[in-house]
Amino acid sequence: MQHFLSTQDWGTGQLGRLLDLATELKRNPVQDRLRGKSIALMFLNPSLRTRTSFELGMQQLGGIAIVLQPGKDAWGVEFKPGAVMDGDAEEHIAEVAGVLSRYCDLIALRAFPLFQDWQTDREDAVIRSLAQHASVPVINMETIVHPCQELALMQTLREHIGDVAGRKFVLTWTWHPRPLNTAVANSALTIATRFGMDVTLLCPEPAYRLDEQFETAARANAEESGGSFSITHDIEAAYRGADVVYAKSWGALPHYGDPKAEWALRSRYRHFMVDEEKMSMTNNALFSHCLPLRRNVKASDGVMDADYCVALDEAENRLHVQKALMCTLLGADGAEETKNG
Amino acid sequence: MQHFLSTQDWGTGQLGRLLDLATELKRNPVQDRLRGKSIALMFLNPSLRTRTSFELGMQQLGGIAIVLQPGKDAWGVEFKPGAVMDGDAEEHIAEVAGVLSRYCDLIALRAFPLFQDWQTDREDAVIRSLAQHASVPVINMETIVHPCQELALMQTLREHIGDVAGRKFVLTWTWHPRPLNTAVANSALTIATRFGMDVTLLCPEPAYRLDEQFETAARANAEESGGSFSITHDIEAAYRGADVVYAKSWGALPHYGDPKAEWALRSRYRHFMVDEEKMSMTNNALFSHCLPLRRNVKASDGVMDADYCVALDEAENRLHVQKALMCTLLGADGAEETKNG
Amino acid sequence: MQHFLSTQDWGTGQLGRLLDLATELKRNPVQDRLRGKSIALMFLNPSLRTRTSFELGMQQLGGIAIVLQPGKDAWGVEFKPGAVMDGDAEEHIAEVAGVLSRYCDLIALRAFPLFQDWQTDREDAVIRSLAQHASVPVINMETIVHPCQELALMQTLREHIGDVAGRKFVLTWTWHPRPLNTAVANSALTIATRFGMDVTLLCPEPAYRLDEQFETAARANAEESGGSFSITHDIEAAYRGADVVYAKSWGALPHYGDPKAEWALRSRYRHFMVDEEKMSMTNNALFSHCLPLRRNVKASDGVMDADYCVALDEAENRLHVQKALMCTLLGADGAEETKNG
Repeated sequence: MQHFLSTQDWGTGQLGRLLDLATELKRNPVQDRLRGKSIALMFLNPSLRTRTSFELGMQQLGGIAIVLQPGKDAWGVEFKPGAVMDGDAEEHIAEVAGVLSRYCDLIALRAFPLFQDWQTDREDAVIRSLAQHASVPVINMETIVHPCQELALMQTLREHIGDVAGRKFVLTWTWHPRPLNTAVANSALTIATRFGMDVTLLCPEPAYRLDEQFETAARANAEESGGSFSITHDIEAAYRGADVVYAKSWGALPHYGDPKAEWALRSRYRHFMVDEEKMSMTNNALFSHCLPLRRNVKASDGVMDADYCVALDEAENRLHVQKALMCTLLGADGAEETKNG
Repeated sequence: MQHFLSTQDWGTGQLGRLLDLATELKRNPVQDRLRGKSIALMFLNPSLRTRTSFELGMQQLGGIAIVLQPGKDAWGVEFKPGAVMDGDAEEHIAEVAGVLSRYCDLIALRAFPLFQDWQTDREDAVIRSLAQHASVPVINMETIVHPCQELALMQTLREHIGDVAGRKFVLTWTWHPRPLNTAVANSALTIATRFGMDVTLLCPEPAYRLDEQFETAARANAEESGGSFSITHDIEAAYRGADVVYAKSWGALPHYGDPKAEWALRSRYRHFMVDEEKMSMTNNALFSHCLPLRRNVKASDGVMDADYCVALDEAENRLHVQKALMCTLLGADGAEETKNG
Repeated sequence: MQHFLSTQDWGTGQLGRLLDLATELKRNPVQDRLRGKSIALMFLNPSLRTRTSFELGMQQLGGIAIVLQPGKDAWGVEFKPGAVMDGDAEEHIAEVAGVLSRYCDLIALRAFPLFQDWQTDREDAVIRSLAQHASVPVINMETIVHPCQELALMQTLREHIGDVAGRKFVLTWTWHPRPLNTAVANSALTIATRFGMDVTLLCPEPAYRLDEQFETAARANAEESGGSFSITHDIEAAYRGADVVYAKSWGALPHYGDPKAEWALRSRYRHFMVDEEKMSMTNNALFSHCLPLRRNVKASDGVMDADYCVALDEAENRLHVQKALMCTLLGADGAEETKNG
């Protein structure tokens, strides 16, 4: 049994086969590969794309999706082992994982970090404790990484570019009124270096660098894949010659849990918004973003409405890659399965 | 591609065929006409009937329904074009519409007016911007009109009366402790005049007249259909000879966004509640209401529990007409489709 | 037409046949017995197991489940007959029941007591008024009893023990920081006495005794089934020789609606937590709980993680017994139905 907590736990070949299956499922979306199978989708945070694509995807494959929102329509959950549960949570992850494993064939969780202490949040303990207590495969729907988004991003680049190795991929920090999760940024670095791209992280200043564990992984990935990884604070150097511009806003980790101090820093960098002028410096780059995106804050209307913006393609690919992921985790990824469709 | 934002955009013949298909689907409710098709149901406001009937209806036809509540379980949405999104909304309708169009075959939206400025709300900009950005048909689940309710109302009248042309239809304002949306009132006028009924709008005083665009449409409809449209503040004159009494409460538009001023007016009209005494003045009229209904506030227990109350029939018909609507919008309304059932 | 409001309304033979069908459905979970049938699941309170098991169970049988949360995503509901609805509720149970009976084949409701006045809550008026107004079978998903939990508990005991008659069943009150619903405690007494067990209610003092109607029913059940029913405040006497320890926390009825006064009492009884030392006094008893359970508050980690803890089995059986229940209520419980699977 394999979980899908991070793409780093999976082999590059396995990821490639998963994307190939996604391509096949995109051509033939309604199949019976997962007839009678079920997935529990647990959301501790809001979602549009993730929920819609998982619910729809499972049902298009003949299965059943159950959406749960612990703390809202379900009971609050305790994640710490050994806790004396005298607080708000009525239920421990041991039981939640145990019960859902009895009911469902897959469990997926969205659990954003708590934005209080990065030293705690960087351990990703919530989804790890779910995986530890579950007896069925667990899927990460975004914690401190967003591996489903990685698959959709890479699938979209493959569709538009073909072989991505050696292409320049720029991950740019953007303006946003609040400090956000670093998950998609961590994930973008990880997957782009994995597939041999020349990856540049553009951020306003060192305080916006990503956690060491992800920068280290990106360097190791690049070494293995023949790509590269570098960091710059120079907007023009970053955009110049880019084949892909990928945008995301995130909070400065040194001020994690202190939005006021972070704001003092952040408020100087409104000009990091992606606009047509910046895009004109690139090598006719594609632009994408994981969505949701604040228009004219993270990227201008002109960029979002341009032909080179593939954010909707990436969002659509969430559906196809996640269907391939569910099939793979449940052993329904074989070619012979197609006949049942 | 056709949207369903208002019945006024559809031909009378087309509406009639849709109701005929609804009759057929009522006889044979579980079919495979929409196998593998999907609808996104977006609710910015609460719902019982609308959600249940759409979810159930789509699934009875072999399809998949996804329920989203932006701002609650999904991200808040910005609807203004060109907005610099520095406020609460994390996502623009352009992307919401674009993404959902990639995932689903239909998008439905409930978006009540905001009750601040009628000059803004009367433009129905929210659903219009969704329709503008969507590449699949959009269904109005109530904004400033409620066209699905219109279909259910007309289907119910056809079932009980047969040919409705020339019958007296009274839309009466009723008491309610708060100023409500005018949507169902606007819609009742529209559909009853469309099908040739003699329509009387009964309201306490001129302040409770409906927006000019709907009164004008009602007059034009009546002229074309051979029906009539008049307005009165005289309870007895309205009820006398009525074949159908349709009740709804709504806020006075001159005091829109100012509930205190509205209350000064409203508080005098508690006696507009529909009761058995008023119903006894009619021509053995049917009574109906769109529900939800506050008993002994909008209508008495005696009226609600009477044989002439067809509100449950109308609620049930929501299911059948909406199934017919989805089939029509997706080109699955042909007679040959029945064989697949 | 039969409702499922309480197991006391059902014959013991009928309950036994339902559990036999559940065993069969556990072996063969995906069937078409309820193809095209639907259930409305109304939650006035949170749920994990109940919602997941009903949604999943109905879909595994080919049917459709609709989840509604009145007051959150649906309109607030008035339950009192004759009410002048000038308060918060927009809709009366008469219409909710009437409409949902038109749409769905089954209606299920979770409506916890309001914790203000036990003399009112003990009448269970909310679900009784739903059943009165519904024209389809109504299922109790927990009010002041939790009959679905009873079925799962008894099924679990049958699986682990076989014939339960004459076995010692201890229902123990446990510590919890707040006064909870008595429903599961009432239900445990009811079902264990029904099947001939020797039932001991262990609670800290007379204030924690259960409502007279349930103690009386337990005594009558025991008399008919050949079991017994007794009450003790002595921990050792209760655990000694027990075959089953079933834990639950609940509020003291004499202080119902007055959490401060209840706390003065409750705070003395933290030692009623189930731990390994207490379990060592038993006859190698099974331990179970309905979940959710606060670890190290109601029961220790050691107990929860022990082999004798069958709480997950009981949770899983919720799925199987509820599927059998839905089939039974809809007349799809015959052996010949299996062929359709």
